[in-house]
Amino acid sequence: MRILVVNCNTSAGMTAAIGDVARAAALPGTRVVAVEPSWGVSSAEGFYESFISAAAVLDLLATTEESFDAVVMAGFGEHGREGARQLLDVPVVDITEAAAALAVLVGHRFGVVTTAPTAVAGIEHSLATAGVAGRCAGIRATAIGVLDLHGDLDRTAAALIAGGRELIAAGADALVLGCAGMAGLDLELERALGVPVIDGVAAAVALCESLVRLGKTTSKAGPYTRPDLLKDRPGWPVGLHRPVPVDA
Amino acid sequence: MRILVVNCNTSAGMTAAIGDVARAAALPGTRVVAVEPSWGVSSAEGFYESFISAAAVLDLLATTEESFDAVVMAGFGEHGREGARQLLDVPVVDITEAAAALAVLVGHRFGVVTTAPTAVAGIEHSLATAGVAGRCAGIRATAIGVLDLHGDLDRTAAALIAGGRELIAAGADALVLGCAGMAGLDLELERALGVPVIDGVAAAVALCESLVRLGKTTSKAGPYTRPDLLKDRPGWPVGLHRPVPVDA
Amino acid sequence: MRILVVNCNTSAGMTAAIGDVARAAALPGTRVVAVEPSWGVSSAEGFYESFISAAAVLDLLATTEESFDAVVMAGFGEHGREGARQLLDVPVVDITEAAAALAVLVGHRFGVVTTAPTAVAGIEHSLATAGVAGRCAGIRATAIGVLDLHGDLDRTAAALIAGGRELIAAGADALVLGCAGMAGLDLELERALGVPVIDGVAAAVALCESLVRLGKTTSKAGPYTRPDLLKDRPGWPVGLHRPVPVDA
Amino acid sequence: MRILVVNCNTSAGMTAAIGDVARAAALPGTRVVAVEPSWGVSSAEGFYESFISAAAVLDLLATTEESFDAVVMAGFGEHGREGARQLLDVPVVDITEAAAALAVLVGHRFGVVTTAPTAVAGIEHSLATAGVAGRCAGIRATAIGVLDLHGDLDRTAAALIAGGRELIAAGADALVLGCAGMAGLDLELERALGVPVIDGVAAAVALCESLVRLGKTTSKAGPYTRPDLLKDRPGWPVGLHRPVPVDA
Amino acid sequence: MRILVVNCNTSAGMTAAIGDVARAAALPGTRVVAVEPSWGVSSAEGFYESFISAAAVLDLLATTEESFDAVVMAGFGEHGREGARQLLDVPVVDITEAAAALAVLVGHRFGVVTTAPTAVAGIEHSLATAGVAGRCAGIRATAIGVLDLHGDLDRTAAALIAGGRELIAAGADALVLGCAGMAGLDLELERALGVPVIDGVAAAVALCESLVRLGKTTSKAGPYTRPDLLKDRPGWPVGLHRPVPVDA
Amino acid sequence: MRILVVNCNTSAGMTAAIGDVARAAALPGTRVVAVEPSWGVSSAEGFYESFISAAAVLDLLATTEESFDAVVMAGFGEHGREGARQLLDVPVVDITEAAAALAVLVGHRFGVVTTAPTAVAGIEHSLATAGVAGRCAGIRATAIGVLDLHGDLDRTAAALIAGGRELIAAGADALVLGCAGMAGLDLELERALGVPVIDGVAAAVALCESLVRLGKTTSKAGPYTRPDLLKDRPGWPVGLHRPVPVDA
Repeated sequence: MRILVVNCNTSAGMTAAIGDVARAAALPGTRVVAVEPSWGVSSAEGFYESFISAAAVLDLLATTEESFDAVVMAGFGEHGREGARQLLDVPVVDITEAAAALAVLVGHRFGVVTTAPTAVAGIEHSLATAGVAGRCAGIRATAIGVLDLHGDLDRTAAALIAGGRELIAAGADALVLGCAGMAGLDLELERALGVPVIDGVAAAVALCESLVRLGKTTSKAGPYTRPDLLKDRPGWPVGLHRPVPVDA
Repeated sequence: MRILVVNCNTSAGMTAAIGDVARAAALPGTRVVAVEPSWGVSSAEGFYESFISAAAVLDLLATTEESFDAVVMAGFGEHGREGARQLLDVPVVDITEAAAALAVLVGHRFGVVTTAPTAVAGIEHSLATAGVAGRCAGIRATAIGVLDLHGDLDRTAAALIAGGRELIAAGADALVLGCAGMAGLDLELERALGVPVIDGVAAAVALCESLVRLGKTTSKAGPYTRPDLLKDRPGWPVGLHRPVPVDA
Repeated sequence: MRILVVNCNTSAGMTAAIGDVARAAALPGTRVVAVEPSWGVSSAEGFYESFISAAAVLDLLATTEESFDAVVMAGFGEHGREGARQLLDVPVVDITEAAAALAVLVGHRFGVVTTAPTAVAGIEHSLATAGVAGRCAGIRATAIGVLDLHGDLDRTAAALIAGGRELIAAGADALVLGCAGMAGLDLELERALGVPVIDGVAAAVALCESLVRLGKTTSKAGPYTRPDLLKDRPGWPVGLHRPVPVDA
Repeated sequence: MRILVVNCNTSAGMTAAIGDVARAAALPGTRVVAVEPSWGVSSAEGFYESFISAAAVLDLLATTEESFDAVVMAGFGEHGREGARQLLDVPVVDITEAAAALAVLVGHRFGVVTTAPTAVAGIEHSLATAGVAGRCAGIRATAIGVLDLHGDLDRTAAALIAGGRELIAAGADALVLGCAGMAGLDLELERALGVPVIDGVAAAVALCESLVRLGKTTSKAGPYTRPDLLKDRPGWPVGLHRPVPVDA
Repeated sequence: MRILVVNCNTSAGMTAAIGDVARAAALPGTRVVAVEPSWGVSSAEGFYESFISAAAVLDLLATTEESFDAVVMAGFGEHGREGARQLLDVPVVDITEAAAALAVLVGHRFGVVTTAPTAVAGIEHSLATAGVAGRCAGIRATAIGVLDLHGDLDRTAAALIAGGRELIAAGADALVLGCAGMAGLDLELERALGVPVIDGVAAAVALCESLVRLGKTTSKAGPYTRPDLLKDRPGWPVGLHRPVPVDA
Repeated sequence: MRILVVNCNTSAGMTAAIGDVARAAALPGTRVVAVEPSWGVSSAEGFYESFISAAAVLDLLATTEESFDAVVMAGFGEHGREGARQLLDVPVVDITEAAAALAVLVGHRFGVVTTAPTAVAGIEHSLATAGVAGRCAGIRATAIGVLDLHGDLDRTAAALIAGGRELIAAGADALVLGCAGMAGLDLELERALGVPVIDGVAAAVALCESLVRLGKTTSKAGPYTRPDLLKDRPGWPVGLHRPVPVDA
């Protein structure tokens, strides 16, 4: 099985880190390809960047010649997932909804620790339109920028732990890492806080694998019907879905 | 006062029609400039086109050298409005929320008549994230494409009237035209159906004029704080807002 | 265009102040007539007064012999707006919903600063039944009575600013003046707090002007159908609506 | 125990009918006094009448010299209940919320059969602000006016039964009589439809008796705090509550 | 009239206390029989115990040979009420919904003071599925276990009063005792806090009496239709409902 | 990895069928053990059976001596999942929420086809308390009993297809099999209806595998804290969780 993991920003360093986390989470037979769009924003921390990023990611998906069995959209709270579903037949899993989907299986209410305060409203919209906001106990911003997360890891971890403590006090008993750039920090938070912490990238990889193995593809009977303007466009997304055995 | 009306698709013909409606609705002292993005989609009838369109419109707004007192986003149910608010200081009014805002002042519940069935889900998201879905009685698609609306006007009007009747039967006592390309058809529907019909383009122009005349600008204290990546970018959007007398 | 602005209480001094704010907000061609009911309550700060006030305002509207192009109901959070819509053909705009309608165009979430703690629940009901509560970040009472607002303006402004700060801390990035008697204080709050502040009276005048200029009248196809008991009653509200040019 | 049952309209005939139903539902030791306001509307079938009625009922309550142990507000979907709670210390029970409160104890979802189509929106508001709309399966109007209900009882019963059937098909397994003027028709509907049918007048009497017997009075710690303008007014509502034994 | 009050746990001491409160609340002609299940849990303070308790209570109801006119389920926030309604024809009233039903008649928002923090989520579910969560201002746990409530009554009362104060500060103007084991403490809290305090056991008895006296039984037209597996089972629940005069 | 799949009813034949579907969905290294409770109900099609079943399943889980890495609760819409989470440290996945979690990744709104009409309300509660009801387009009952599903497979398939068609017409673009006994019929429905169809048993197995492989366990920081009454009980659930390699 081949999964395309798309970083929503143009930072190749972050793509590499996301790819590592995705690969660590994947089944032995899964091949993960991590990419970033060739244009767009270096980081997405608010509505403006999110909308630019959405188009850049969709452009990447529409022009990728290679075909994949599933796509992970690795931008927490970013826009575009329903557009990718309209474009593609293979499953598309956004890390925002993936993290929420697993969090509610191991906790009663989840909290989200994220980066900039300007990112919070977009995450709220993303959870609400995904229909999974009902069990979110809150979102806390650490005020550490996406690209600074890996600068001083101790400071990052301390900020996430502080945010996590506030969320637990507010009723969360599970946490979600609210940025693809935090991928891999879940275990450190779990140790510090004693609650399950979900990394959306790993969660999305696992959900993609599950959907592919169960043979499920994106519905073309509703709003994800392929748009007319792509009708005559050649390419992998349409009609090329072929479920691949796990050991492929 | 100068208002920039941005068609969300690249169809110059539709831009012209939207501009005419906007000008007809504007106060004597208002100058309306209607534009379309230089790239993007020829029409937006679903999530994929909507996300491409959002970035194209934001790109247009970020690179327009001239300054305006307010911006109308003329794509019904399309994405991007919160991004434009982050980019700009001047008021940004989306025709979706503008239509709903006026409709609930003259009717108890409003219905939306729109184009393609694939557009419905995006309109639902747009009304929900705008916080104005509570008084929407339903959305009906006519199955007439955005670019075909003006092809056979009798057929278009008949389809809108049929959709309007269904919505009234479902509890609506006011209607909203669910596509910028329908601008100008409100009066015909009013005559046929006997309920107020709101055209979002005209509504948005009026709301822009109201906000500018009252001296209101977009809040920069929350998620519409300007993104860092535009910090050093010159241009009209930042700091250039100057309320203009109506008779300017 | 002629707009009737109805103070919801019997205080002539407040009527005068509201009228001044309404006139300052109006277009050059608009004539504003501000009135108060001949009976009712001297101020409305809770459910009991609100219901008395609603009937007194409706009585005033039903017996006014002169006709107007639109009506502003200038009681924040007070009852009666749907009754006035049933009675009249011309647009009726309540300052509560008007303020919310403009606030969500320039801010992501709005807060309301009001007078007595007993007024809060009525404002919540009013926003909820108007369908615009979804983006309200909270309501703060200053504990200054309606009729004391203008007694010590420095104290009033200080209390409103303190309430506004709490609301901003709670997630608001725009504010709404939660009492018609606060009309005119929006600019002082804007200067102090750096967020847009909406005065419902000014907002309602602008919305009335917009609706009249666009030729919209109140729907008579749903719950605003005129009640039978007024069927044979002569008077301006029924059938006399005549859109007036802006420069009339 | 003495319960004041207030018809919301001025029709003495309906007051008598409501009083009979209330007395039939009351405990042996309860004395029911049924009254109507001395001014207001002959029937309430929409927002306008409802607001007039609310003030007339509050006026009656504020000027009644005799004291009672509880008040039933016998107008289905009509306004005013929170105002009466602000005015009085004794329990105030509105037949709308009373009917819903009992209906959800014997059915999973309840439907409401009411009179004029214009009454539906007010009932929706009343259930929503009471916080009991979540289990309402729908509201059906019979198009029989309040004052015509008793004109041709067979026609009335047939219309109510037809409306009830539609509601059951829409998911209701219990019904509520949506007009005080329907009081007494519950048994006939039960026989015809085989589901429990709640009469709000009887339900409200029973709830008043329960509250009085348990010694509960209206909270004065929140929005039902007595308004200042009634501070110096003499009368039964303030401080005169005295729980009376059932056999008084 | 005969009412069966079922303690949800196996503690005979608590059954006796609940029975005393129920009898004190009942009408002269009502006979209260208080029982506990013969198996299950000694106290229910979380989901696990609640589900065990639900089955034990249903087992008790299905095997009780004597017949009753109504059933009170005396476990605050515990599961099972809809199952009992499916099993029985007579009215079934859960103390959770009973307390909420009366609380919203005398207060604008109610708060719940309960025992263990683990009980809060179940109470939230119970209020939500009952459709009465909309007016709940919050739930506070005292961290006193169900079986310790009567150990040191002063400590219990102090904890409940402290929790009540927090809830009032959070917007409650009425309180609900969130555990059957607190029955009887309502008066002490009322004296200390000055707001109405509802005891669910007393409330449920009064609601049962009301339903029986009005001749209402559980609907068998929806999800409370008797399950097939009990079709051939003899016993009181089916078909034996006989309304009994109050003075029986 | 070892997964315990618990049929919620006592039908060994259904356990075998569920086990087969679970095994077909599982990864090569996963060992599935399917069991049914030793007491309870032969099928669960309403609230009463669901509550009995919940206790029987919890009893089974509390007394199973063998330990597992995760538990699938294979009763669609049945109660008990939060109780199992309180009891166990290992992940517990209910097929109701599992099906919804995957369905919203491949469709915009999902519909549920289920068995008896009496089962619908319980499914609604289950989706609502799981926080995933927002994207459910409806639930349709086929009126085929749980134990009759496999009697005449053609009739069952036809009924499911008819129900699915209604749901698609009502806005669903994906379906969920609303009964564990339907496991395996997803492919037939997909072929007939052209939309993705999710089988909750397969979905739950995949989600269990994902959680175990990511090392996640049930939070013990909130309402899933282990109940005191199990404090001294020996057994696998507590402290025995040991993540097992996929190839174990």
